[in-house]
Amino acid sequence: MRKPDTGKDDTMRPSGRTPDALRAVEIETGFNRHAEGSCLIRMGATHVICTATVEERVPPFKRNSGQGWVTAEYGMLPRATNSRMRREAKSAQSGRTQEIQRLIGRSLRAGVDFHALGERQITIDCDVIQADGGTRCASITGGWVAMKLAVQKLMSAGLVKTDPLGDPVSAVSCGLYAGQPVLDLDYAEDSEAGVDGNFVVSGAKLIEVQMSAEGSTFSRGQMTQLMDLAEAGCAELAQAQLRATA
Amino acid sequence: MRKPDTGKDDTMRPSGRTPDALRAVEIETGFNRHAEGSCLIRMGATHVICTATVEERVPPFKRNSGQGWVTAEYGMLPRATNSRMRREAKSAQSGRTQEIQRLIGRSLRAGVDFHALGERQITIDCDVIQADGGTRCASITGGWVAMKLAVQKLMSAGLVKTDPLGDPVSAVSCGLYAGQPVLDLDYAEDSEAGVDGNFVVSGAKLIEVQMSAEGSTFSRGQMTQLMDLAEAGCAELAQAQLRATA
Amino acid sequence: MRKPDTGKDDTMRPSGRTPDALRAVEIETGFNRHAEGSCLIRMGATHVICTATVEERVPPFKRNSGQGWVTAEYGMLPRATNSRMRREAKSAQSGRTQEIQRLIGRSLRAGVDFHALGERQITIDCDVIQADGGTRCASITGGWVAMKLAVQKLMSAGLVKTDPLGDPVSAVSCGLYAGQPVLDLDYAEDSEAGVDGNFVVSGAKLIEVQMSAEGSTFSRGQMTQLMDLAEAGCAELAQAQLRATA
Amino acid sequence: MRKPDTGKDDTMRPSGRTPDALRAVEIETGFNRHAEGSCLIRMGATHVICTATVEERVPPFKRNSGQGWVTAEYGMLPRATNSRMRREAKSAQSGRTQEIQRLIGRSLRAGVDFHALGERQITIDCDVIQADGGTRCASITGGWVAMKLAVQKLMSAGLVKTDPLGDPVSAVSCGLYAGQPVLDLDYAEDSEAGVDGNFVVSGAKLIEVQMSAEGSTFSRGQMTQLMDLAEAGCAELAQAQLRATA
Amino acid sequence: MRKPDTGKDDTMRPSGRTPDALRAVEIETGFNRHAEGSCLIRMGATHVICTATVEERVPPFKRNSGQGWVTAEYGMLPRATNSRMRREAKSAQSGRTQEIQRLIGRSLRAGVDFHALGERQITIDCDVIQADGGTRCASITGGWVAMKLAVQKLMSAGLVKTDPLGDPVSAVSCGLYAGQPVLDLDYAEDSEAGVDGNFVVSGAKLIEVQMSAEGSTFSRGQMTQLMDLAEAGCAELAQAQLRATA
Amino acid sequence: MRKPDTGKDDTMRPSGRTPDALRAVEIETGFNRHAEGSCLIRMGATHVICTATVEERVPPFKRNSGQGWVTAEYGMLPRATNSRMRREAKSAQSGRTQEIQRLIGRSLRAGVDFHALGERQITIDCDVIQADGGTRCASITGGWVAMKLAVQKLMSAGLVKTDPLGDPVSAVSCGLYAGQPVLDLDYAEDSEAGVDGNFVVSGAKLIEVQMSAEGSTFSRGQMTQLMDLAEAGCAELAQAQLRATA
Repeated sequence: MRKPDTGKDDTMRPSGRTPDALRAVEIETGFNRHAEGSCLIRMGATHVICTATVEERVPPFKRNSGQGWVTAEYGMLPRATNSRMRREAKSAQSGRTQEIQRLIGRSLRAGVDFHALGERQITIDCDVIQADGGTRCASITGGWVAMKLAVQKLMSAGLVKTDPLGDPVSAVSCGLYAGQPVLDLDYAEDSEAGVDGNFVVSGAKLIEVQMSAEGSTFSRGQMTQLMDLAEAGCAELAQAQLRATA
Repeated sequence: MRKPDTGKDDTMRPSGRTPDALRAVEIETGFNRHAEGSCLIRMGATHVICTATVEERVPPFKRNSGQGWVTAEYGMLPRATNSRMRREAKSAQSGRTQEIQRLIGRSLRAGVDFHALGERQITIDCDVIQADGGTRCASITGGWVAMKLAVQKLMSAGLVKTDPLGDPVSAVSCGLYAGQPVLDLDYAEDSEAGVDGNFVVSGAKLIEVQMSAEGSTFSRGQMTQLMDLAEAGCAELAQAQLRATA
Repeated sequence: MRKPDTGKDDTMRPSGRTPDALRAVEIETGFNRHAEGSCLIRMGATHVICTATVEERVPPFKRNSGQGWVTAEYGMLPRATNSRMRREAKSAQSGRTQEIQRLIGRSLRAGVDFHALGERQITIDCDVIQADGGTRCASITGGWVAMKLAVQKLMSAGLVKTDPLGDPVSAVSCGLYAGQPVLDLDYAEDSEAGVDGNFVVSGAKLIEVQMSAEGSTFSRGQMTQLMDLAEAGCAELAQAQLRATA
Repeated sequence: MRKPDTGKDDTMRPSGRTPDALRAVEIETGFNRHAEGSCLIRMGATHVICTATVEERVPPFKRNSGQGWVTAEYGMLPRATNSRMRREAKSAQSGRTQEIQRLIGRSLRAGVDFHALGERQITIDCDVIQADGGTRCASITGGWVAMKLAVQKLMSAGLVKTDPLGDPVSAVSCGLYAGQPVLDLDYAEDSEAGVDGNFVVSGAKLIEVQMSAEGSTFSRGQMTQLMDLAEAGCAELAQAQLRATA
Repeated sequence: MRKPDTGKDDTMRPSGRTPDALRAVEIETGFNRHAEGSCLIRMGATHVICTATVEERVPPFKRNSGQGWVTAEYGMLPRATNSRMRREAKSAQSGRTQEIQRLIGRSLRAGVDFHALGERQITIDCDVIQADGGTRCASITGGWVAMKLAVQKLMSAGLVKTDPLGDPVSAVSCGLYAGQPVLDLDYAEDSEAGVDGNFVVSGAKLIEVQMSAEGSTFSRGQMTQLMDLAEAGCAELAQAQLRATA
Repeated sequence: MRKPDTGKDDTMRPSGRTPDALRAVEIETGFNRHAEGSCLIRMGATHVICTATVEERVPPFKRNSGQGWVTAEYGMLPRATNSRMRREAKSAQSGRTQEIQRLIGRSLRAGVDFHALGERQITIDCDVIQADGGTRCASITGGWVAMKLAVQKLMSAGLVKTDPLGDPVSAVSCGLYAGQPVLDLDYAEDSEAGVDGNFVVSGAKLIEVQMSAEGSTFSRGQMTQLMDLAEAGCAELAQAQLRATA
């Protein structure tokens, strides 16, 4: 991995990182004694607890199909952010929260063979205990680790025969900061970027591409540069995910 | 515009359209007597009423800024779809609804000069009265028309001096149907596509790119083909928007 | 039908109508491709989309009774009115909305033979896309048309043998405007009337009589005049309903 | 007052009352030590606590008008009825509850001179502690008594100079029971009646007429008979209200 | 029972009671004709309607256990208090309300043999119609009476063979008022006391001890004095409960 | 501190602890970079993140009083427990959650001089990331540490002159397990105990005593034994709190 915080003099990023540098990634597995799989993922100062819960039931639309399901929920502790936020419930989540957890669930499902998993559900809870930008991407990356650990437990117990997971599912943000494409925005960058997005990658394939402008626009050329950054960043993250679950 | 529903024998699309053909677009302006701007947009069998409401107040974060704001809400009549859906309220919208209206608002805002608009808010309501796929894109395309008409009214009244709107903001869906990139998916295609997304374009610039896989993945090559289709489709839509507001 | 908007010089109604004149009634059937029956009813500038949804299930209290059920929901698009209103959901409807849809359901049920309908439910959705007074009455009148069309479809399919519907169920408002009894109040009249009400009629029979004073009172003699107006107005509406479903 | 429960042999009412007989009416004033006016009204086995709360503030639409306002809320204790009901809150009242309290408020307001009352609000809470039919009518009749007592207190304190209340506002139900018009339905009758309604009367004037058929219809002749019964019943109630507030 | 309101000159309590004096207790049984057991309990100016509802069903965690269950709900009429409060629903109860009804249910359950009761549920509704301090204690004391009456009815009907209830469950408040331990605080005392609590007693045994300081603290010696007062007070209440259910 | 997990052969506690032994206590301060004070407290396998947020505003009832306020919120991550729980929001917290956070707030406030704090609010968020019994007590003990750190920061900044905090506020649970009084119940004990409670202590003074029986009772003698255990346990906790904030 390229070193973060290199102190290279000519960079314009607040953290001193080069445009193509990820923040330091640490994945501490087995963080929760109750969950079937769990980790605490740290992407710089963004810290997320990811737990995987295995239940021997599936949603109505999957019953008697022989296939499993994966779903995700996302939350933030009230003081995960610089100023305190209100708590929100499953029944009254903000649009932002729902959009994020739909993305996490969709991304993780793309990497699962539901026949191999069998008729059971894995729920991934991603709870941000400290936020510094990129929480949804850290949730996907860490969520895959928690899911992988839970699947390993199911396989050790003989409940699942064939590994339903393939290449790690990794996610990273990109954006135009001060007009320049940069990888893995922290909060200081994210709050200034007029264009930013999230990329979810598994091996050589794309799962999700989201690029949004708020009060701005971007060109196809910039889109291409951002995708190049994201693919390289996700490849690094995949290495960290494989090490954590080896 | 290329003819929709051509009956070309070798196409594989359920509607008989070629991969790069939009559905028939009709924009009926002045559909609502109360709204400052309004239209009924029909993209094939997808019909959306778009109204623009102008209010001489802005949200708290814009007060005393001299700048305006644009926001959007999206809804569906219960029987807009093939089977009846429950009504939902602003205070209890589903994640899907909130995600859609956040997209509509963000897209329309990207094309507005808020200083030129002045300290007032335009609310775009997009209500789907009949759905056949692509309702969020039709809402953006029609919503821009309603907004443009409301702005013309403000300019005629001398309340706004410089047109705050530039090129039309147009949106279209794309996806992989039966493995092939196609433009402007209808419901029959959308419900089968493992990969689909939405593109929002204004002139030569991109505002939003969203490409999602559900239980599938896609390559960078396919991504490029889909963006080519989308740019051509949005250019056609922009012509229809300009005609409707001429 | 008596001509609306006659321009008669001695009338005191804002629209120029005589006290006993309905607004122009237009009923456009087949407005929605998904619904089993549908129409767009226009009473002057009041426009309501009515759809009938047939479902092969009934509420718990009707199960295994061999009888059907009819229920109604009522909504308004946010900009149906002169100033924009908040969206409301089934779970959080205002008292006014609930009162209206209870009236619509009760009125339409009075005209149905539930044994002849068989154990199925028809849900009538009445969505006001433009309001100018009298929306609940237009909903009942248009709702009956949508229900009739759905029943005709069930009969054509052989699912229902005997027509469960009799005379059309028609509704009209009446009130004291400038002290004088008038028929079919539009918004300009309704907002000034201290006494107004709604009458639901089927053939020679009454289904519902509601006469309310807000900050005012009325005499039995006035009550009699209002009922005379309403019976004549509903007879006209019944003709329009029969033509639309012939 | 005609005697209730006469035991006359030829009556068909479950209670043995003649068709034109009210139930025994008892009004116990001063039931609550905190409220500015209060009573416990008993109409047979229907018991309602009515309290009037005076507040020196008015709703926004009345501010700086020099005029007052009257509003009402209605509730039932969970075991007021034969089988236990769920508790409901102001923010989640059923349609029935909202319809009832809108009726109570509207009826009581019709008998108030808001200029004479001055810029203050009276809230009437009607809480049914035991129900046997006719709870909304008992609430109006008892609510007027609570309001009258509160107004007397305001006048004694010199805060109101001219009595803002005129004739008592009284309410009674009527309906067709076993095909015959009867006055003041109890639960046994109400649950069987296909046609019933509520009449609100003040002196020689009508305030509200509501006649509804559920799965039935009625003629104009029957309507006239029901109004005759109601006017006589309300005259009796007005005597009881005057005695209670003398 | 010691006389309340003795007018003894050297007491410092607002009511003139001695530190160890209860308020006058009156229990009027059979207050509600629908409930299986009911009473109106008055502890001075605190008045609570308690009803017991018997249902031949139990919550899921008790099904097929042969055992019954007891649960409680607590409410206040809006004008039970000196200034009017908002109504609250089961689905949106304040923390205070939920805490109170959890206490009532837990306390009453402690005195019940669920095997003897058999697989049925008793719901105790405690509705405060006038409040002057100590409403939760009055609810427990009166709730036990309503429960006892309902059980007697079940035993008379032969549905329950062995009495599932033992000694009465009685509750009383205590606190430090003007630095001195006093029994059965009324509102004037309660609003001034920095330390107060509730004691639930059955025979010689304790069921619940709750002592809280708000902005204050207390010593173990004071705790002992308060428990002495509470035990004596509950013994008096038990006598009143036994008389009411004899 | 007495050693936990001593393996003493004659103990009957599942953990092997003696009846008067606390679990191992660890307090890691500075766990959150955004909060004004924070810690992660571990009582055995019960882990709680406590953060203190300082805001320069107070609730309405404290405005312009020159006094501050302390409030608390409590939450659990969905997988803090052995089986996954639903997320809950501030607006829809369960009775248990509200009861807990009212206890935490009340307990912490008892140890604060609000004049010395000045007109500002400290909000203590206690979020359980892993639960094994005694979460509310750990929240109080850890919450005091977070509050103390935040106050030290205010004093260093010169915003507060006199330390508004005195002796640490410590809390511990006690209960009857297998008939014997034990200190600091873990989940295995708590789920079996018919009688248990929480004690909040500050120096030689009591702040809160809560002892509840569920389907059981207890004697005054047992109450005394439990209070002895609790006082000794809280004294040990206070030492840990002082070390963490030294």
